[in-house]
Amino acid sequence: MQKSLSVYDSDGSTFAPLVVIELVSETKEEAIAWLLNRVRDKQQDGGAELLVEQLTPGAQGTEKDNPNVYVVGASWQRLLYGAEDVGLFKEFNDGSMRGFTYANKHNFKEFQGDGDGFLSMAECQYIIKHELDNLRAKDEAHVPGYPKMKLYPGKSVIRRMQSKGILVQVFPLHEKEELKRLSFSWFKKIKLSFQPLDDIRHYFGEGMALYFGFLEYFTLALIPMALIGIPYYLFDWEDYDKFTVFAGFNLVWCTVILELWKRLSASLAYGWGTLSRKKAFEEPRPGFHGVLGVNPVTGRAEPLYSNAKRQLRIYLVSVPFVLLCLYLSLYVMMIYFDMEGWALMIHDEEPTFWTGLLLFIPSIIYAVVIEIMNLIYRYAAEFLTGWENHRLESTFQNHLVLKVLVFNFFNCFASLFYIAFVMQDMVLLRQSLATLLITSQILNQIMEAFLPYWLQRRRNKKAHKRMIKTMEDKELPLSEQVKLEADMSTYLGTFDDYLELFLLFGYVSLFSCVYPLAAVLVVLNNVTEVYSDAFKMCKVFKRPFSEPAANIGVWQLAFEAMSVIAVVTNCALIGMSPKVKSYFPESETQLILWVVGFEHFLLASKFILTFVIPDVPKHIQIKLSRLEFESLEALKKRMFITLHVAQK
Amino acid sequence: MQKSLSVYDSDGSTFAPLVVIELVSETKEEAIAWLLNRVRDKQQDGGAELLVEQLTPGAQGTEKDNPNVYVVGASWQRLLYGAEDVGLFKEFNDGSMRGFTYANKHNFKEFQGDGDGFLSMAECQYIIKHELDNLRAKDEAHVPGYPKMKLYPGKSVIRRMQSKGILVQVFPLHEKEELKRLSFSWFKKIKLSFQPLDDIRHYFGEGMALYFGFLEYFTLALIPMALIGIPYYLFDWEDYDKFTVFAGFNLVWCTVILELWKRLSASLAYGWGTLSRKKAFEEPRPGFHGVLGVNPVTGRAEPLYSNAKRQLRIYLVSVPFVLLCLYLSLYVMMIYFDMEGWALMIHDEEPTFWTGLLLFIPSIIYAVVIEIMNLIYRYAAEFLTGWENHRLESTFQNHLVLKVLVFNFFNCFASLFYIAFVMQDMVLLRQSLATLLITSQILNQIMEAFLPYWLQRRRNKKAHKRMIKTMEDKELPLSEQVKLEADMSTYLGTFDDYLELFLLFGYVSLFSCVYPLAAVLVVLNNVTEVYSDAFKMCKVFKRPFSEPAANIGVWQLAFEAMSVIAVVTNCALIGMSPKVKSYFPESETQLILWVVGFEHFLLASKFILTFVIPDVPKHIQIKLSRLEFESLEALKKRMFITLHVAQK
Repeated sequence: MQKSLSVYDSDGSTFAPLVVIELVSETKEEAIAWLLNRVRDKQQDGGAELLVEQLTPGAQGTEKDNPNVYVVGASWQRLLYGAEDVGLFKEFNDGSMRGFTYANKHNFKEFQGDGDGFLSMAECQYIIKHELDNLRAKDEAHVPGYPKMKLYPGKSVIRRMQSKGILVQVFPLHEKEELKRLSFSWFKKIKLSFQPLDDIRHYFGEGMALYFGFLEYFTLALIPMALIGIPYYLFDWEDYDKFTVFAGFNLVWCTVILELWKRLSASLAYGWGTLSRKKAFEEPRPGFHGVLGVNPVTGRAEPLYSNAKRQLRIYLVSVPFVLLCLYLSLYVMMIYFDMEGWALMIHDEEPTFWTGLLLFIPSIIYAVVIEIMNLIYRYAAEFLTGWENHRLESTFQNHLVLKVLVFNFFNCFASLFYIAFVMQDMVLLRQSLATLLITSQILNQIMEAFLPYWLQRRRNKKAHKRMIKTMEDKELPLSEQVKLEADMSTYLGTFDDYLELFLLFGYVSLFSCVYPLAAVLVVLNNVTEVYSDAFKMCKVFKRPFSEPAANIGVWQLAFEAMSVIAVVTNCALIGMSPKVKSYFPESETQLILWVVGFEHFLLASKFILTFVIPDVPKHIQIKLSRLEFESLEALKKRMFITLHVAQK
Repeated sequence: MQKSLSVYDSDGSTFAPLVVIELVSETKEEAIAWLLNRVRDKQQDGGAELLVEQLTPGAQGTEKDNPNVYVVGASWQRLLYGAEDVGLFKEFNDGSMRGFTYANKHNFKEFQGDGDGFLSMAECQYIIKHELDNLRAKDEAHVPGYPKMKLYPGKSVIRRMQSKGILVQVFPLHEKEELKRLSFSWFKKIKLSFQPLDDIRHYFGEGMALYFGFLEYFTLALIPMALIGIPYYLFDWEDYDKFTVFAGFNLVWCTVILELWKRLSASLAYGWGTLSRKKAFEEPRPGFHGVLGVNPVTGRAEPLYSNAKRQLRIYLVSVPFVLLCLYLSLYVMMIYFDMEGWALMIHDEEPTFWTGLLLFIPSIIYAVVIEIMNLIYRYAAEFLTGWENHRLESTFQNHLVLKVLVFNFFNCFASLFYIAFVMQDMVLLRQSLATLLITSQILNQIMEAFLPYWLQRRRNKKAHKRMIKTMEDKELPLSEQVKLEADMSTYLGTFDDYLELFLLFGYVSLFSCVYPLAAVLVVLNNVTEVYSDAFKMCKVFKRPFSEPAANIGVWQLAFEAMSVIAVVTNCALIGMSPKVKSYFPESETQLILWVVGFEHFLLASKFILTFVIPDVPKHIQIKLSRLEFESLEALKKRMFITLHVAQK
C-alpha cells in the first residue's frame, strides 16, 4: 500500500487516505457533522469506526472548489476486522484458500508483523465501501438539517444521501506508483504477452480481472479459427460450397471453448479466493422506492413494493415496448434492403468505380444506424428497468441485460439471418458481415476509449489548465490528485465491454463459415480492444471499487444461449450448401430430415457434454471438499465437547 | 415411539429395541465381544455409546435359530445428541424449520419434558444406523479372531464386517401398532383419499414419502388427460387426423407438470426439514476396494482406485456392452416385426376368430420378452457398475440408473418409434401401445408385489409353520418378531418403482395422442400400484431405514429428458397427421420446415419456462432466506464481540 500520501486525523496521527466522499458544496453544516460523527463512531455505538478528514485545499485551491470533500481511511486493525466481516478469502499456510479471520491471522501466508501490506489497496477500499454502505440509521427520523430526507432504523445512511443528491460521489483513490507499474506491464510495453491478470485483480478487483481474462481467453480461442480462416479465405473465396467443414468446426469450437472457460474461470476465482466465498445478504438498491413496511426476511423496516405491480409494469409496458423496438428495427432493416437494391440497380445500369463504392454505402449507413439505435435503446432500457422498481441490484441488472441483449441481438443479426435464410444470398451475406464487423469495430473503439478521453482532456483543459503538465508529475499533492480524479468520468461497469464481446462471438460462431475472415477481424479487434480497455481503465476513468466475482455471471448464460443458436444456424447453413444438397439429388425432404436429425443429435451431445465436463477442475474440487470436510469435522468436535461437558 | 417392547441392558434397566444386528451363527466369540464393546463404549473412547443386548430366544426357540442376533437402542439423551449430529431439522417455536441442537432443544415445537416422543421411531433408527456406520477402527489391525479382515484407523467397522460377510444384516424393527394404523389409513380402507404422506414419512422416512407423493401427483396430473382421452377414444377411434390437438395438449402438459412437481416437492421437503439440510461427507461404499492410500480430502487412510482405470473400464467394457445390448434389443424387435407380418398374413388368408386373436400373440410375446430382457440386463448392469468400482454410493447409483434407463427406454420404445416414424402405421402403433401397456402392467403387478408375497408366505410356512397364525397376534414376543422380520425380503429401494413410473410417463407423453386411452390405463395402473406398493412396504418387506431426501434426485432429470423427447415426438406426429399435411398441399418441404420451426420454438419456450418458474415457492424462499440471514447476522454478532473483547 502506498505510504507516500497521508493526512492527519483529529488525534494528530496520520492515516493513508483510501476513499473520497464528496458532498454538494451547499450541504448544511449539521448534516456534515452528523455524518462525520457516524463514520467515526465506535462500532458498538452503531458507527463505522473509520478515520475521516476534510481535504485541505492545496496551494492551487480556488474559491470555486468544493470544500466538502472528505478522505476516509482506517486503522490496520479495523481493516483486518473488516476483511473478516466482508468474508475475504486469503491463502492459508498450507496453500489452500480460507476465509480470513482475525483470530487466526498469523496462519495466513503473507501475514507479517502487524499485517501492514497483507491487504491490497483495492481490498482496503472495498472494505471501507462495505462499512460505509452498512452505516445504518439508528433512531434519527431524518438527516439532520434536512427534514425531507427521511430515515428509519436500519436504512443505509450513505444510500439515502446518495439517492437524495447531497452525496455527490464516493470513489476510491488511484495509487500512482502502482498504476504506473500496472500500466507498463499492461499496455505500455510493445511486446505481446499474456494479460497481467493477477496485477489487474490486485489493482481493480476480481470482476475486472475476470473480464480481461475472458477477453484474453476468447482472443486466444479465436486464433485457430483465424489460422484456418486465412488460407480458406485466400484460396476458396468464390467457392461457396466448401463452407460445410468450417461450419462443422464452428459447432464444436463454440461448445468446447465455453465449457473450458468455466473451468479456467473457476481456477482463477479459486486462486483469488472468490470461488467459495459466501454472498452477503443483498440490500435494496439505492433507487428502490415503496411504502415503508417490514421485510419478511430481515424483519427490518424497509420500503416494500408489490410484486404484482412490478409484474404488471413488466408485462404491460416493458414487454410491449421491447416488441415495438424490435418491430422498428425490422422496419429499418427493410429500408436498408431497399437502399441496397437501389444501389445495386444504379451499379448495374452503369458500373463505374464510384457506383462500385456506392454498393458499400447502404451497409455502412445501416451499421451506423444500428449503433445509434442500440445506444438510444440502451438509455430507454435503463429508464424502463429503473421504473420497474426492482428491489435488488442483481435483479435490476438481469432485467437490464435481458432487455439490451434481445434488442442488440436482433438489431445486429436480423439482417444477416434475413440475407442467409430468406434471400439465401451468400455473396451479400459475406459483404454485409464484413461491413458490419469493420464499421462497428471502428465505431466502438472511438466511442469507448477515445471519445471519453478527448472529452475529459477538453474538460481538464478548461478547469485546471496548468495541472495537465503536473499530472505526469510524481509528487502531486493529495488535494490536487483528489480534485483531478473527482473530475474523471465514472466507469459504469463491464456491461458494455461484455456486450461487445457477445456480439463479436455471435458474428464468429453464427456466420464465420461463410466469411472466414470474420475470426481474423475479431482477433484484430480484440487485440486493440485489450489496449484501449486497459488504457481507459488506467487513464480515462476514476478508479472503480473492486467487485468480488467468482465468474462472469449472466454472461456465461448469454454466451451459451448464443452457442445453441450457432448450432442451429450452422446446421441450416450446412443444409443449404450446394455440396450437401448434391447428396440428395431427388428429395429435398430427405435432405431436410437428415439435417434436422443431425442438428438434434448435436444439440443433445452439447447438452450431455455440458453435464459430463465438470465445471470445476478436479484438483480444485478436492481442495474445496477438503475445506468443507474440515468445517464439518470442526462442527462435530464442537458438538462432541458440548455433549461431554453436558454429561459431566 | 413404542413402549410395549423392551429388553434389559447390562445394567438391568430397560431400553426400547430399535435396530437389529445379525451376525453369522459361527462368528467367533472374541469378535462378538469386541464389536459389542465398541458399540457400547463412550464416544470419547471412540465408541458409539449405544445400548446393545443379545436377543434371548423365546419359548419357540429351536436349536436351528441363529443365536447371534442383537438388538440396539439408545438413551434419549444419546438420541437427541445424535439428532444434532446427523443434522436433523425440526419445527421451531416460530413455525420455521431449524437444525436441531441439543442446547436449544426447548425452543423446538414438539419438545416436551425430557424429549421422549420428540423423535419418530424412524428418525431414531436412522440416527442409530448413522452412529453404527460411523463406528471406526482405532488401532486394530484386523477384526479380533479374523486376521484376514484387515482394519485401518478410520475404517468403518460395520462396513468391513458387512463386506466380509460375518455381518448378515442390520435392519430397523417394525412398530406393530403404528404399522397397523398406517396400513389402515393407507390401503385398508376402501374410500379413495389422498396418500397419508406425513404418516408415510413418519414411518418410512422422506425418500419413501416423496416416492408416494410423486406417484400420487403423477396420477392426479394424468386425470385431465384421461378425462379428455375417454370421449376422444369413444368418438374418434377411426379418425386418425384428429390427434394434433391432443398432441399439443400433451406438449404443454408434460412441461408444466414437471415444473409444478419441483415446487410441490420443495414444499414437502421444507415441511419435513430436508430441504435446507446439509449433506454429510460421503464415505466410500462398502463394495469399494483399492490399494490403501491417503484420501486427499479427509487425510484419512482409505483404499484408493485410479480414476483412469475406472474410465477405461467404463469406456472399454461398459459402454460397448450397453451398445451390444441395444443392438440385441433391436434384433429382437426385428424378429417381432417378422412375427407380426407372419400373423397378419395368416389372418388375411383365412380370417377367423382365432386368427384375429393370433394377431395379438406377437405383441404379447414381445412384451414378455422385453420384460425378461430388462430383468436380465438389470442384473448385468448392477454387476458391471459394481465392477467399475465407484467410490461413492451416489456415483454408483447414477451410473446404474443411466445404464438401466437407456436400455429400458430403448427396449420399451424402439418398436413404437419404428412403427410410428418408419412404418408410419398408426393403427399398428395404437395396437402395440395397448398391448405393451396392458401386458407390462399385469406383469409388473405380479412381479412386484404378489410374487414376493407368495414366496415369503411359502418360506414362512416352511420355517415357522405355527407362527403364521400368531403373526396377526398383537402380543408377539420380541424374539419372535425379530425372527419373523429377519426372514422378510429386503426392500432394495425406490429404483424399480421410479423406473416403472418413468416408462409409464413415456408411454403417455410420447404416444398418448394416437392412443388416448393410454392415460386412462396408466391412471388405473397407478391406482393399483399405490395399493400394491403400500401393501408390499407394510407386509412383504423388512422395514427399510429411512432415507432423508429433499427431492426425487436423478429421476427429476430423467423425467425432464423424457419430456424433451416428448416435445420432439409430438411435433413429428403432428407433422405426420393428414390434417396438417393438407395445409401444405404443394410442398412437403414447407411442411417440414414449419414443423421444425414450431418444434424449436417449443423447445426454446420450455427452456425459458424452466428458468422463469422458480423451483421453490415464494413463501418457502422467504423462510429459507430468513434463516440464512439470521445465521449471517449471528456470525457478525459473534465477530463483533470478538472484535471488542480483543480491543479491551
